[in-house]
Amino acid sequence: MALRTPIHTLPRRVIIPKITQRHSSPCPIHHARLLATVAPPVTQSSTSSQGPTAMVFMNMGGPSTTDEVGPFLSRLFADGDLIPLGRLQPYLGPLISKRRTPKIQKQYAAIGGGSPIRKWSEHQSSEMCKILDVVNPETAPHRPEGGGAVAFTQYPQYSCSTTGSSLNELWKWRNRLEGKGDTPGAITWSVIDRWPVHPGLVEAFARNVEEQLLTYPEEKRKEVVLLFSAHSLPMSVVNRGDTYPAEVAATVWAVMQRLGFSNSYRLCWQSQVGPSAWLGAQTSDTVQEYVKKGQTDLILIPIAFTSDHIETLFELDQEVIHEAGSPGVKRAESLNGSKVFIEALADVAHKHLQSGESCSRQMGLRCQGCTSERCLEQKKFFVGQENFLSVR
Amino acid sequence: MALRTPIHTLPRRVIIPKITQRHSSPCPIHHARLLATVAPPVTQSSTSSQGPTAMVFMNMGGPSTTDEVGPFLSRLFADGDLIPLGRLQPYLGPLISKRRTPKIQKQYAAIGGGSPIRKWSEHQSSEMCKILDVVNPETAPHRPEGGGAVAFTQYPQYSCSTTGSSLNELWKWRNRLEGKGDTPGAITWSVIDRWPVHPGLVEAFARNVEEQLLTYPEEKRKEVVLLFSAHSLPMSVVNRGDTYPAEVAATVWAVMQRLGFSNSYRLCWQSQVGPSAWLGAQTSDTVQEYVKKGQTDLILIPIAFTSDHIETLFELDQEVIHEAGSPGVKRAESLNGSKVFIEALADVAHKHLQSGESCSRQMGLRCQGCTSERCLEQKKFFVGQENFLSVR
Repeated sequence: MALRTPIHTLPRRVIIPKITQRHSSPCPIHHARLLATVAPPVTQSSTSSQGPTAMVFMNMGGPSTTDEVGPFLSRLFADGDLIPLGRLQPYLGPLISKRRTPKIQKQYAAIGGGSPIRKWSEHQSSEMCKILDVVNPETAPHRPEGGGAVAFTQYPQYSCSTTGSSLNELWKWRNRLEGKGDTPGAITWSVIDRWPVHPGLVEAFARNVEEQLLTYPEEKRKEVVLLFSAHSLPMSVVNRGDTYPAEVAATVWAVMQRLGFSNSYRLCWQSQVGPSAWLGAQTSDTVQEYVKKGQTDLILIPIAFTSDHIETLFELDQEVIHEAGSPGVKRAESLNGSKVFIEALADVAHKHLQSGESCSRQMGLRCQGCTSERCLEQKKFFVGQENFLSVR
Repeated sequence: MALRTPIHTLPRRVIIPKITQRHSSPCPIHHARLLATVAPPVTQSSTSSQGPTAMVFMNMGGPSTTDEVGPFLSRLFADGDLIPLGRLQPYLGPLISKRRTPKIQKQYAAIGGGSPIRKWSEHQSSEMCKILDVVNPETAPHRPEGGGAVAFTQYPQYSCSTTGSSLNELWKWRNRLEGKGDTPGAITWSVIDRWPVHPGLVEAFARNVEEQLLTYPEEKRKEVVLLFSAHSLPMSVVNRGDTYPAEVAATVWAVMQRLGFSNSYRLCWQSQVGPSAWLGAQTSDTVQEYVKKGQTDLILIPIAFTSDHIETLFELDQEVIHEAGSPGVKRAESLNGSKVFIEALADVAHKHLQSGESCSRQMGLRCQGCTSERCLEQKKFFVGQENFLSVR
C-alpha cells in the first residue's frame, strides 16, 4: 500500500537503516519514510539512464529507549529465523521476552538508555552516500518513477538468522504491496548479501586491533592474544548448513593475514541464550580460561558487528571484561565512524551497482537442511530480479 | 636410543612420511629408517653452513594390508588426542576397534586392499625434495653430525586431533631418546604446522574442481553445487577452542575466491563416529538433502585431505556417491600426484626454511579449554627450539 509512494518520492539516494522489520518495525517503509529525511540530498545526474537507487541498510534493530525494550524483545523472540523455538514459538517467545525484559532494560540503561545501532547506521550510510555519489554518478537517479533499490546487509557474514531473516521480511512486504508473481514491480531489487573479506573491511578491523595493541608496553605486545568474537548460532542452525561460521572464519583469517600473523589468536562465539547447544568456544569462558592459564593480555575483537550495540557495550565491556578483573583484558574499538570502513561500504556498493547482479550466486542456494518455503520463495524472487536489472 | 644414529646417517634430505606414530608405528624412527631409502639422494652442497635437513612428513597412518586393519584401529582408538573417549579410553578403545575391524577390513578390501596414503606421501615428498634441492641449496646438509629436522604436517589445517597429536608423539619420543630439558639435542626441530591458504594449495584444489566441472554440459555447469568436505570433529573438541574449523573455512573461501565464486557451495563435514555430537552439517546428509530438493549436480571436494584414503575412496565414492544414485553427483580428484600441489609443498618448505622460525606464533597458544599437560610441554618445546635454530 505504502511502498510505491514513499520510494518514489525519496531523494535520489535514500538511506534506510535498520529494516530488520520484525525487530524494529512491522513495515520497512515506515522506516523508509521516517529516515528518508536523514539522507543528505545528492547531486542529480540528468543524463543517467538508471533510476533512483535507494540504498537500504539491513541491520539488527534495537530499542532506542528502555521503554522500547519490551516490544523489541517480543518481536525478537517471535522471529523463528533468528531464534528458532520450534512449534512452541508463539507461546515460548512472549514468555521468554517478558521474563528477560527487566534484565535487558537494566543493560540498556547501563549503556546510556538505548542502542547506538541506529545512530551509527545513519552516520555510516549517510557518509557512504556522499562517497558513492562521486564514484558512481551513473546510478544517480533522475526519473521520479520506477528505479531500483539495493538491500545492503550490514552483517558482513551471511546467516539465515540475520540477513536471511531480513530478506524474508523484505520479500513478504514487497509481495503484500506489489503482489506476487514474476512480473516486475515498481522497484527492482538487488541485494548485497555478504562481504566478509572486503579489503576495506579487513583494513578497518586491523587498524582498530593495531591501535589497541599500541596500548600495551612494547615488550609485551607480541604476547597479547587476539580473541575474535562473533555472535554464536544454535547448533541446529549450524548443522542445517548455515554459511555464517565459515564466513566469519574467512574474515578472521583475512584480518590475521593483514596483521602478518603478528599475534596468536582464537575465534570464539558470544551471546548464546537458552539451554540448547550453541556453537563454541564461548567468549566468556575463553576469557576466563586464558586468564586462569596466566594469559592476562587479551584483546576482544567484535568481528561480526559493524557498530557498537548491547553485545559490545554491555556484554563484552561490562560483563566479560569486568569479570576478568585484569587490566590487560581490553576490547578493540567497533567500526562505528571509521572512515576506512565507510569508504569500504561505498566500495562494496559501487562494485555491486557496477556488477549488474541481483545477488551473489551463493545466495541462491538454500541450506541443505532448510525446510522453509519462505526461504525458497524469497531466494527465487531476489535471484529472479536479475531479469529486470537491465531496465533499472 | 635409535634416534641419533639413523638421522645422522640419513641422506641430506630425508623424507619420512606418515609418522602419526600411534597409528602406524610406535616409533617415528622406525619409519625413518625404513623410509630413508626411498628418498632420492640429492646434490650435496659442501659450502652450506646449515646441517642436514630431514623433511619429516606427518600424516594420518593407514593399514597397508587388510591384516593390518586390526592393529591400526587399536592404535587409532587408543589415541585420546584423535578420538577422545575420556577415562574409559583404555577399555572402550579396544572394544570399539575390535567391533569395527571386520567392517573396516571390507572397506579396505573394496579400495584395493590397503590405504594409498603411504604411496602418495612418498611420491609427494620425494618429488618435493627434488624441487627444494634446487630452490633452497643452502639447507643442503653437509655435516654428518647434528643438524635440523623439519616436521611438516600434511594436514594443511591445524587440529589438536591431527597435527597436534602427531607433535605430542614426536615430542614424547624425542624426550625419551634425547632427554628432557631445554638443552639442545642432537637435532634441532622446527615445525610447519599449518598452511591452509597457500596459493599453490588453493590452485591445486581449484584446478581439480575446474576439471570436474568440465565433465558437465556447458549449459548446466554454473548450476552445479560445490560441496567441500572435511573430516568432522566432536563438538567437545570444537568447543575447547580447536582452530581446525576456522582454518578449513579459510581454505574454502580461498578456493572459491580463486574460482571467482563461479558456483554456489557449502562446507560440510564427514566421517563422524559414535553417539556424541559432532560438527555438521554432515556430508552424507547434505548430499541426500540436496538430491531430494532436486539439486542433483554436486561435486564433492575433499578439502582437508591431500591424498586419497579410505574417507575418499570408500566413504565418499562407494557410500555417499553410490547412495545418491544420481550420475550428477561426482567427486573432485584428490591432490595425490598433482604437480601444482607438489610445487606448493616445496614452496611451503622453502619459505619455512628461510624464515628461521621454529613454528607459527599461533602454534604456541594452547586452546582455551585445553587441560593436557602434554600439549603444554610439547608447545613449550617446539617454541623453544627457536633459540637453537641459528646454530642449525
